[in-house]
Amino acid sequence: MKIIQNIKIAVDAVVFGYADNKLNILLIQQKYGLGNWALPGGFVKDTESLDEAVVRELKEETGVKANYLEQLYTFGAVERDQRTRVVAVSYIALINPKNYVLKADTDAKDAKWFNVNDIPSLAFDHNEIINAGLERLRSKINYRPIGFELLASKFPFSDLEHLYQTILNKEIDRRNFRKKLLSFGILTETDEFQKIGSGRPAKLFKFNSKKYQALEKKGFHFEIKFA
Amino acid sequence: MKIIQNIKIAVDAVVFGYADNKLNILLIQQKYGLGNWALPGGFVKDTESLDEAVVRELKEETGVKANYLEQLYTFGAVERDQRTRVVAVSYIALINPKNYVLKADTDAKDAKWFNVNDIPSLAFDHNEIINAGLERLRSKINYRPIGFELLASKFPFSDLEHLYQTILNKEIDRRNFRKKLLSFGILTETDEFQKIGSGRPAKLFKFNSKKYQALEKKGFHFEIKFA
Repeated sequence: MKIIQNIKIAVDAVVFGYADNKLNILLIQQKYGLGNWALPGGFVKDTESLDEAVVRELKEETGVKANYLEQLYTFGAVERDQRTRVVAVSYIALINPKNYVLKADTDAKDAKWFNVNDIPSLAFDHNEIINAGLERLRSKINYRPIGFELLASKFPFSDLEHLYQTILNKEIDRRNFRKKLLSFGILTETDEFQKIGSGRPAKLFKFNSKKYQALEKKGFHFEIKFA
Repeated sequence: MKIIQNIKIAVDAVVFGYADNKLNILLIQQKYGLGNWALPGGFVKDTESLDEAVVRELKEETGVKANYLEQLYTFGAVERDQRTRVVAVSYIALINPKNYVLKADTDAKDAKWFNVNDIPSLAFDHNEIINAGLERLRSKINYRPIGFELLASKFPFSDLEHLYQTILNKEIDRRNFRKKLLSFGILTETDEFQKIGSGRPAKLFKFNSKKYQALEKKGFHFEIKFA
């Protein structure tokens, strides 16, 4: 089968990390060209799937492994890369930054977390990809329990509240949020406590993914509504 | 920039049409190979965007133009096409079949509507793509007013009810559905009536997309909940 086509295919990831009540995105500085900041990613190898390619690129360029990876959108405007025609399959990835030391390599000169409110002008259409990724994250945390992938495995309930407030960029009704989340039965109370600020120690919770999966099979929908 | 990569990129569309209370999908019979049925689609040209490619392929292979087109998912398993590595960017498309006479051409020997419950075994991973498309459609009609793209421009309210029941494959509470839809203020009552069966003529409605867009800008969310 002969097809005359001169288009390359790449994968790019919008990697979200949450630390100190801030939502951050992992960017790399390109080793070549003008040394612009860009999303981690690169060309797909002939022998790997798209998902495998993005896992490999993340590891090579930044040293991280995503807790959660989801295909976002495929960007295919003709002029998006001035060098040659490149179609980019984008992903969102969620990680807990505390589990990794960033390590730039291969095509990346540097790898760094940037606050979502302070993203520089990036290579190609990567700012547009980030906007699409943020939109997906903001929408999806309302109907899938993916936010837990951004937290420590054991967390005080207030961390979950802050996470939602930070991602949605608005105040939430904390009492209703807590009531709703606990009513799902997918959070397990541990016997451990954590001291936060000057208040009394807060109980730590764990997300019970087995319970969630069992409930989901029975038709349970994780859904959070904010006024 | 030299990249050694031997991957081709194609677009494929899951085209939905609704007629006589049935949800159908438009398939083409391949002119080459074993003459299998497949989704309309084909290879992207170097000079066209992905969206342009799918519009062109639909026109060439089936003669239709979509009212609504949305990127679905990109399928990139290594072995999905035995001939060569092909990554497929898939779309869902909605059309009103009454507006078109199907006309197969270029790579298609035939083009035909198939009921969603009666899809044959298709080429490549196209059955999987259809499943993903159905899932997207079933979910999206609950939070975006895209169902109207499948109806005539003027329709009796019962057509809208049947459409939702057919797509969701379940009975809905007709009274609540009607009340909810009319409360949005995005349906315009016309002065026209249509005779349906033995009952008295039913009033025809139109979807007011300008009104919807204006409301959406003010923060209105189209959202239908079924018990």
